[in-house]
Amino acid sequence: MRPDFNKMELIPAIVQDYQTKEVLMLAYVNEEAYDKMLELKQTVFYSRSRQKLWHKGEESGHFQDIKGMYLDCDLDTLLIYVKQTGAACHTGAYSCFFNEVQAYDARDIFRELEKTIADRKIHPVEKSYTNYLLNEGVDKICKKVGEEASETIIAAKNDNKEELVGEISDLLFHTFVLMNDRGVSLEDIQNKLKERHQVTGNKKEFHTRGDY
Amino acid sequence: MRPDFNKMELIPAIVQDYQTKEVLMLAYVNEEAYDKMLELKQTVFYSRSRQKLWHKGEESGHFQDIKGMYLDCDLDTLLIYVKQTGAACHTGAYSCFFNEVQAYDARDIFRELEKTIADRKIHPVEKSYTNYLLNEGVDKICKKVGEEASETIIAAKNDNKEELVGEISDLLFHTFVLMNDRGVSLEDIQNKLKERHQVTGNKKEFHTRGDY
Repeated sequence: MRPDFNKMELIPAIVQDYQTKEVLMLAYVNEEAYDKMLELKQTVFYSRSRQKLWHKGEESGHFQDIKGMYLDCDLDTLLIYVKQTGAACHTGAYSCFFNEVQAYDARDIFRELEKTIADRKIHPVEKSYTNYLLNEGVDKICKKVGEEASETIIAAKNDNKEELVGEISDLLFHTFVLMNDRGVSLEDIQNKLKERHQVTGNKKEFHTRGDY
Repeated sequence: MRPDFNKMELIPAIVQDYQTKEVLMLAYVNEEAYDKMLELKQTVFYSRSRQKLWHKGEESGHFQDIKGMYLDCDLDTLLIYVKQTGAACHTGAYSCFFNEVQAYDARDIFRELEKTIADRKIHPVEKSYTNYLLNEGVDKICKKVGEEASETIIAAKNDNKEELVGEISDLLFHTFVLMNDRGVSLEDIQNKLKERHQVTGNKKEFHTRGDY
């Protein structure tokens, strides 16, 4: 499957962070840039202002490693999933889309939770609850996971939605701290769930046992 | 903040699902379409083939309600977060970007987990483990949440990463079933975590208590 460069010499390419799915930038690709991109497995655009190929990162070091690529129904727009080094925008912003017309909180909060916990481990913050847990270690974190699971059960039995939302959030937070402590990433968990979801077409759905 | 229509009469607009962050389509906007869009709070494009304004959904009913909007650093590309009714693509596909150049599994697996469980409830599947749990009800689901939390703790103590990844995935799956049973959405949880993350700048981070 190739873009239809007969229709348009330059086609737009949307660049998206492969993990958070944040849209990082839009640039243009001609046939030469497209072929170079497939060869390098990094993004290569055609700079309309400088009228030449532009291997993104060649000057800044902020390369975009290609993780996936799709064409739209008309074969005239590219969607590229990348692992971004540094920042996508020339202003130093991670994404180019920072000018707000109408605000929307699009944060991938699970990814941010993981990053914040990892950041606390490297740069401890005084009176941080996360640092307290990480310092206490696996036994303390496990006790909290057990406690929050119990509180989740109690909230469910109380049929109190607000309480339940709070307790499940607590359970997730402490589970994420445990993951950090044990070297498990959010991606590990997502990949395991994706793997299990593969067999949904049959009967097994999201669980591992063969009894249902 | 407005697009710079002096620079370009038509600017590209990237349309993204506000929840899963899947990129749905790319279309073009002129000044008239832009103003109409702000007025209607639904996407309005300029159709280059038909050379006229195109209120997306006016014929198909597949409207896009605008949840957020951003401009890039150059003010010549729009990013629009939408709630998509039906499908974005004229082929009936949810997203236009279905032609694979290089595959990447970009599924939002947590959202899919939530959707699959909700779908099982409405359309029960024989021998489905999810339906078994939903039929048994809250006590059974809570027992499983407690069991999986215990197994998570045991796996953490065994320091067995593979076992721990499996148990945390089980814990999450059963927590999602509990959420469905109690009318709690993934968005409820994400919003609660986002709300708590607001105070990270201070000391409270992701938890509610004042003691750390």
